[in-house]
Amino acid sequence: MSENIYQGLDALGSKTEAPDSPEKAVLETVNNPRPNSNYMVRFTCPEFTSLCPVTGQPDFAHLVLDYVPDALLVESKSLKLYLQSFRNHAAFHEDCTVGIAERLIAELNPKWLRLGGYWYPRGGIPIDVFFQTGEAPAGVWIPDTGVAPYRGRG
Amino acid sequence: MSENIYQGLDALGSKTEAPDSPEKAVLETVNNPRPNSNYMVRFTCPEFTSLCPVTGQPDFAHLVLDYVPDALLVESKSLKLYLQSFRNHAAFHEDCTVGIAERLIAELNPKWLRLGGYWYPRGGIPIDVFFQTGEAPAGVWIPDTGVAPYRGRG
Amino acid sequence: MSENIYQGLDALGSKTEAPDSPEKAVLETVNNPRPNSNYMVRFTCPEFTSLCPVTGQPDFAHLVLDYVPDALLVESKSLKLYLQSFRNHAAFHEDCTVGIAERLIAELNPKWLRLGGYWYPRGGIPIDVFFQTGEAPAGVWIPDTGVAPYRGRG
Amino acid sequence: MSENIYQGLDALGSKTEAPDSPEKAVLETVNNPRPNSNYMVRFTCPEFTSLCPVTGQPDFAHLVLDYVPDALLVESKSLKLYLQSFRNHAAFHEDCTVGIAERLIAELNPKWLRLGGYWYPRGGIPIDVFFQTGEAPAGVWIPDTGVAPYRGRG
Amino acid sequence: MSENIYQGLDALGSKTEAPDSPEKAVLETVNNPRPNSNYMVRFTCPEFTSLCPVTGQPDFAHLVLDYVPDALLVESKSLKLYLQSFRNHAAFHEDCTVGIAERLIAELNPKWLRLGGYWYPRGGIPIDVFFQTGEAPAGVWIPDTGVAPYRGRG
Amino acid sequence: MSENIYQGLDALGSKTEAPDSPEKAVLETVNNPRPNSNYMVRFTCPEFTSLCPVTGQPDFAHLVLDYVPDALLVESKSLKLYLQSFRNHAAFHEDCTVGIAERLIAELNPKWLRLGGYWYPRGGIPIDVFFQTGEAPAGVWIPDTGVAPYRGRG
Amino acid sequence: MSENIYQGLDALGSKTEAPDSPEKAVLETVNNPRPNSNYMVRFTCPEFTSLCPVTGQPDFAHLVLDYVPDALLVESKSLKLYLQSFRNHAAFHEDCTVGIAERLIAELNPKWLRLGGYWYPRGGIPIDVFFQTGEAPAGVWIPDTGVAPYRGRG
Amino acid sequence: MSENIYQGLDALGSKTEAPDSPEKAVLETVNNPRPNSNYMVRFTCPEFTSLCPVTGQPDFAHLVLDYVPDALLVESKSLKLYLQSFRNHAAFHEDCTVGIAERLIAELNPKWLRLGGYWYPRGGIPIDVFFQTGEAPAGVWIPDTGVAPYRGRG
Amino acid sequence: MSENIYQGLDALGSKTEAPDSPEKAVLETVNNPRPNSNYMVRFTCPEFTSLCPVTGQPDFAHLVLDYVPDALLVESKSLKLYLQSFRNHAAFHEDCTVGIAERLIAELNPKWLRLGGYWYPRGGIPIDVFFQTGEAPAGVWIPDTGVAPYRGRG
Amino acid sequence: MSENIYQGLDALGSKTEAPDSPEKAVLETVNNPRPNSNYMVRFTCPEFTSLCPVTGQPDFAHLVLDYVPDALLVESKSLKLYLQSFRNHAAFHEDCTVGIAERLIAELNPKWLRLGGYWYPRGGIPIDVFFQTGEAPAGVWIPDTGVAPYRGRG
Ligand SMILES: [Ca+2]
Ligand SMILES: [Ca+2]
Ligand SMILES: [Ca+2]
Ligand SMILES: [Ca+2]
Ligand SMILES: [Ca+2]
Ligand SMILES: [Ca+2]
Ligand SMILES: [Ca+2]
Ligand SMILES: [Ca+2]
Ligand SMILES: [Ca+2]
Ligand SMILES: [Ca+2]
Ligand SMILES: [Ca+2]
Ligand SMILES: [Ca+2]
Ligand SMILES: [Ca+2]
Ligand SMILES: [Ca+2]
Ligand SMILES: [Ca+2]
Ligand SMILES: [Ca+2]
Repeated sequence: MSENIYQGLDALGSKTEAPDSPEKAVLETVNNPRPNSNYMVRFTCPEFTSLCPVTGQPDFAHLVLDYVPDALLVESKSLKLYLQSFRNHAAFHEDCTVGIAERLIAELNPKWLRLGGYWYPRGGIPIDVFFQTGEAPAGVWIPDTGVAPYRGRG
Repeated sequence: MSENIYQGLDALGSKTEAPDSPEKAVLETVNNPRPNSNYMVRFTCPEFTSLCPVTGQPDFAHLVLDYVPDALLVESKSLKLYLQSFRNHAAFHEDCTVGIAERLIAELNPKWLRLGGYWYPRGGIPIDVFFQTGEAPAGVWIPDTGVAPYRGRG
Repeated sequence: MSENIYQGLDALGSKTEAPDSPEKAVLETVNNPRPNSNYMVRFTCPEFTSLCPVTGQPDFAHLVLDYVPDALLVESKSLKLYLQSFRNHAAFHEDCTVGIAERLIAELNPKWLRLGGYWYPRGGIPIDVFFQTGEAPAGVWIPDTGVAPYRGRG
Repeated sequence: MSENIYQGLDALGSKTEAPDSPEKAVLETVNNPRPNSNYMVRFTCPEFTSLCPVTGQPDFAHLVLDYVPDALLVESKSLKLYLQSFRNHAAFHEDCTVGIAERLIAELNPKWLRLGGYWYPRGGIPIDVFFQTGEAPAGVWIPDTGVAPYRGRG
Repeated sequence: MSENIYQGLDALGSKTEAPDSPEKAVLETVNNPRPNSNYMVRFTCPEFTSLCPVTGQPDFAHLVLDYVPDALLVESKSLKLYLQSFRNHAAFHEDCTVGIAERLIAELNPKWLRLGGYWYPRGGIPIDVFFQTGEAPAGVWIPDTGVAPYRGRG
Repeated sequence: MSENIYQGLDALGSKTEAPDSPEKAVLETVNNPRPNSNYMVRFTCPEFTSLCPVTGQPDFAHLVLDYVPDALLVESKSLKLYLQSFRNHAAFHEDCTVGIAERLIAELNPKWLRLGGYWYPRGGIPIDVFFQTGEAPAGVWIPDTGVAPYRGRG
Repeated sequence: MSENIYQGLDALGSKTEAPDSPEKAVLETVNNPRPNSNYMVRFTCPEFTSLCPVTGQPDFAHLVLDYVPDALLVESKSLKLYLQSFRNHAAFHEDCTVGIAERLIAELNPKWLRLGGYWYPRGGIPIDVFFQTGEAPAGVWIPDTGVAPYRGRG
Repeated sequence: MSENIYQGLDALGSKTEAPDSPEKAVLETVNNPRPNSNYMVRFTCPEFTSLCPVTGQPDFAHLVLDYVPDALLVESKSLKLYLQSFRNHAAFHEDCTVGIAERLIAELNPKWLRLGGYWYPRGGIPIDVFFQTGEAPAGVWIPDTGVAPYRGRG
Repeated sequence: MSENIYQGLDALGSKTEAPDSPEKAVLETVNNPRPNSNYMVRFTCPEFTSLCPVTGQPDFAHLVLDYVPDALLVESKSLKLYLQSFRNHAAFHEDCTVGIAERLIAELNPKWLRLGGYWYPRGGIPIDVFFQTGEAPAGVWIPDTGVAPYRGRG
Repeated sequence: MSENIYQGLDALGSKTEAPDSPEKAVLETVNNPRPNSNYMVRFTCPEFTSLCPVTGQPDFAHLVLDYVPDALLVESKSLKLYLQSFRNHAAFHEDCTVGIAERLIAELNPKWLRLGGYWYPRGGIPIDVFFQTGEAPAGVWIPDTGVAPYRGRG
């Protein structure tokens, strides 16, 4: 792999301003350094927060993003800043989770992508949202996320 | 997504009376904000209680509801109130679990739905009931519920 | 569901004598209250004991019974008494486990049934026996039992 | 031990009506069969529910009761009925938990007693209440309850 | 306990604006309903976020608050709003954690208080901060928090 | 250590009849091979069953026996046979657990002994009984038993 | 099942000499007592040790044997003695694991068999070997072994 | 198996210099001692470290290598030295993980191979990379790696 | 707290060269922002590696550092760089662990400090080293580290 | 620390013959490199096997050795060889465990030492032996071993 595929990156290794909203966030990409192999990349993001569109109160989620890259990889620091940009964004759990996935699909054009959103409980009942772009490509290793189920107390 | 799909909701963000029985409970729905995507929504409900039809004593269950929405999402607070309405309702484990699923199917007309009821032990033996509406639609992510098995002591 | 399907039951809610042997145990059934749905019922039975046919010493097992009912459900208290009736019965692990399954099949005529017997170690080596009546019916939810493996010490 | 210490009991082994409120619940006691030994008894009660005094909505808790008997043991079925009697009782978490302990102290006059209430989360934040009657008597074995901490998601 | 000790509360059961900063947040209190008993109250708060004073980026923490009330209890919803008010507040981990504890001490004047802050890793190394107001009062039950240690991967 | 301290044993390495009742069971002892050291011996016995004196139905328990020997060790196979002799013995949980400990004290005259009985749930509520002979001798290592708490479901 | 299928056994219930080498070990079999059912039998063997052929030092493994019997069951005590016979046998992990499986296939002629060898780490890296005789027969229940992965420290 | 298949090995059982870079590392192979069986070999490598190509700082990973050998096995000590040779090598997570797999494929020409890289978090977000050479050969046992998911704190 | 106590720091928020050896590493400190409170700070460092002084091969450890600050806090990024500086440093486990603690004591002059080193296994046996500067100051909260014990396999 | 304290060692880094019996095993020591500090060293040894003196069959144990060195450290490879020398040694669990501790005390003359032996179950009942040389020296960190308790099945 030629390392200069990273030369145009702005976020990585620099102090970068966090964008104010998802719309303003820039997702940077790099060329897939192993384009001849089918492999899956997983980002586990336990530090996600947004706002409830009805009450305005904070919501929290643990996100797991899995994708099979085609020509592009997402640069990890720009992904982090994109996720941080939801800090003042209001959306329901189902909408927010699927919306993040749709944005990543548009940017990366991956062979396959899925996103699991494990939201913290409200009213004693947590909601999880599981999205994917259809059947995984044959012969790719797609491990379970293994996220522990919610159990209440005891 | 237009947020005014939520404008007709009564339960969310308000003080709402709990219904006296499942029959009186109203399940509110909202339009699916991501109707072009197949995704699964999971509600984990560890706070369910009903009554035994023979002894009249309380029963307890941990419920996990999974569904793939079509045109409608269930509004989460009305779901919570519906589940609370079983507090004075008497039914056997198998009947109660499958009956909740059937009501949700009638209200939501989902692409697919399943409901797991993990009941607390009676006579040293817990009963679990696992219902679903047949094979999941192809290409949808349906993670295992991961609920820990009952183990007795030791 | 009409609740009078339970009117003929003897064991439930009464003081009942435990049968002396599996042969004398009566398994009571009730009509499936949700006959139009395919669902699985799980009984987890961590309190099973029988005798070794060679040494006469007690054996212990943790049983997990899964079945998809057709016309009949097994009544849970009569199931409990049936399992208790093995207390003075001598049989090897493989034979005992499969034999319980065969009796339940004969009584319930289920769409599908499986029984896992996780026996306590003898000579440092536990035996597990896993029986089922062939492929599960399509479209039924059959979760893993999730029983923890034996690990020795450490 | 003479077994006739149990002859006056009403609840055990009978069909008993559940009391409507904690005030109406009768806690039965039996004479301590081992009065010359200091030992601790633990009841783990994962099936507790009461009502919120402000919203009227159900609350749930997992209770662990530990006590060192003096002259009296609490009869377990009457304890169960007493705890069930909170089903329609409204009280705050701190008040309810400490109140149960105070009632048990008045009835049993134990050498020592503690009660842990692990309440299900509200607003994303569970409350636990830990009460005891002061230092445990010297030389008594008081194991930790080992209840898993609340962890949110992920 | 007289329930009207709660009559002056503003936050509980109402829609309440979240305060913009910790300084503006109002911590409401109620009279201890069981003032003659020594008991500990635990709030587990897995949804805490603040900002790094150097980089401006979000920090996340899991907080566990334990206290032994004297005359006052903290009202739980106002506690939740107080913790939410750190969302745009910048402070280092050690400073932020101990500062929250000091504020609560000033408001509640408890017999004893401790606060554990389990911060998410930065640079591969998480920081935990453990504060308490000295030795616990004798004879009070102070269970371990049981928070799982950070383990990296594998 | 001279190995002939074991020469008088009957149970070990032989086929031995299980005694019919605790009264008939013989506990064999051997001389402590390390009488100049204070150490603790733990037997973990997950295969214990007795009968309920009121209903006659089987009860199950997981027992953990800890003792600090003085002049005598209990021979392990005779201990196993003694515990098996409760199979047809009827006693309440508290009585049965403390009674086993008292018998062992009488036979072994240990420096210290404790016995934990973790009984399987009845009525949704398991009972644990924790007995010991007072403060452990100074300077002896007495680890926690680490038995997992009962958690119900979920 | 007729119990006299066990009458020719030598090892079970007797004091038996351990064989010196795998070659000398005799694997005894019994007729399958349930020959009309397809079921799987699992032996979990956490007490396996052999020698390294290069260094001569002991190796340790945790073995899990799964098989679907045809006409024959392996007698468990002779299996234990066979595994013990590797105590002074030198072989590499891959060779030893697959060799045990091949011997069992030759003796039992099972419908299907697999053997997992989880070896203790050498050089900080444990080796696991997973063998099976091809696809499992259709409709047989083959649960995962659930052995915990190696994780190093932390 | 003839043990002299190991006679040409240099690394095993000797003091061997660690190579300075992956390019200089020599992967030794041995003939598959069980060439007529399809089986999978797993190496779990929790001690992997390399360098970040942008910041020069150390990265850490937990690697799990699974392969189905054809004619050759990789010798375990040379594998260890190969992995150690990344200590001063700079590469991104995706590139490094897939690159190791590609080198092993070139050396071993296995029937199938996969490699999971579970990297320690950077910026609060760990990356996992999952590579395999397509569908596993039919009838081979390929257990899940069971690596615990990253969970942040709490 | 005045935030300008951080103004002299070099490492935090900058790209900083990693020092070549522990001797060259600079540990930066900041004034304790809460000097009137006794509290404990924990750093969990799962990414530590050094070299074996005899074989030259890499060693790995999981470190947990606990200290009660007096006038100074250690700046976290400089701590990270200090620990990274052992990458090419050779020392035995006991020596290395205690040496790190001694360096930190010299730099920070804390009220109390302890350091646990959990080293990865060599020869099948991991070594843990537990150091502290004597009894903890009275009234400070010192939670257990909770690091999972090494268990081998199974 | 001067590294030449290791110059006289025979076992470390060499191919060394395993001794035939504990009596022939040589425990090598090195001078404590940090003699001015009180610290504890833990060796976890999950690979221990000996023989039963009555039946001649193998026994297995998981050992945890903790000690506070005075002038001497035990060299780890010679410790490993010493433990391996029990492979053909016959002794009862209590005797064997305490005997190992006594030998180490004689060789190392430590400030304090303890040894936990967690033996694999025989007759369904594992024995654990916990030895220590009296109260730990004040101010030394002695963490719990955290070994999981035996639980049988389920
Ligand atoms: Ca990046
Ligand atoms: Ca629960
Ligand atoms: Ca809602
Ligand atoms: Ca029933
Ligand atoms: Ca083990
Ligand atoms: Ca009772
Ligand atoms: Ca979390
Ligand atoms: Ca409140
Ligand atoms: Ca690790
Ligand atoms: Ca014995
Ligand atoms: Ca056998
Ligand atoms: Ca090798
Ligand atoms: Ca810093
Ligand atoms: Ca090793
Ligand atoms: Ca050494
Ligand atoms: Ca059990």
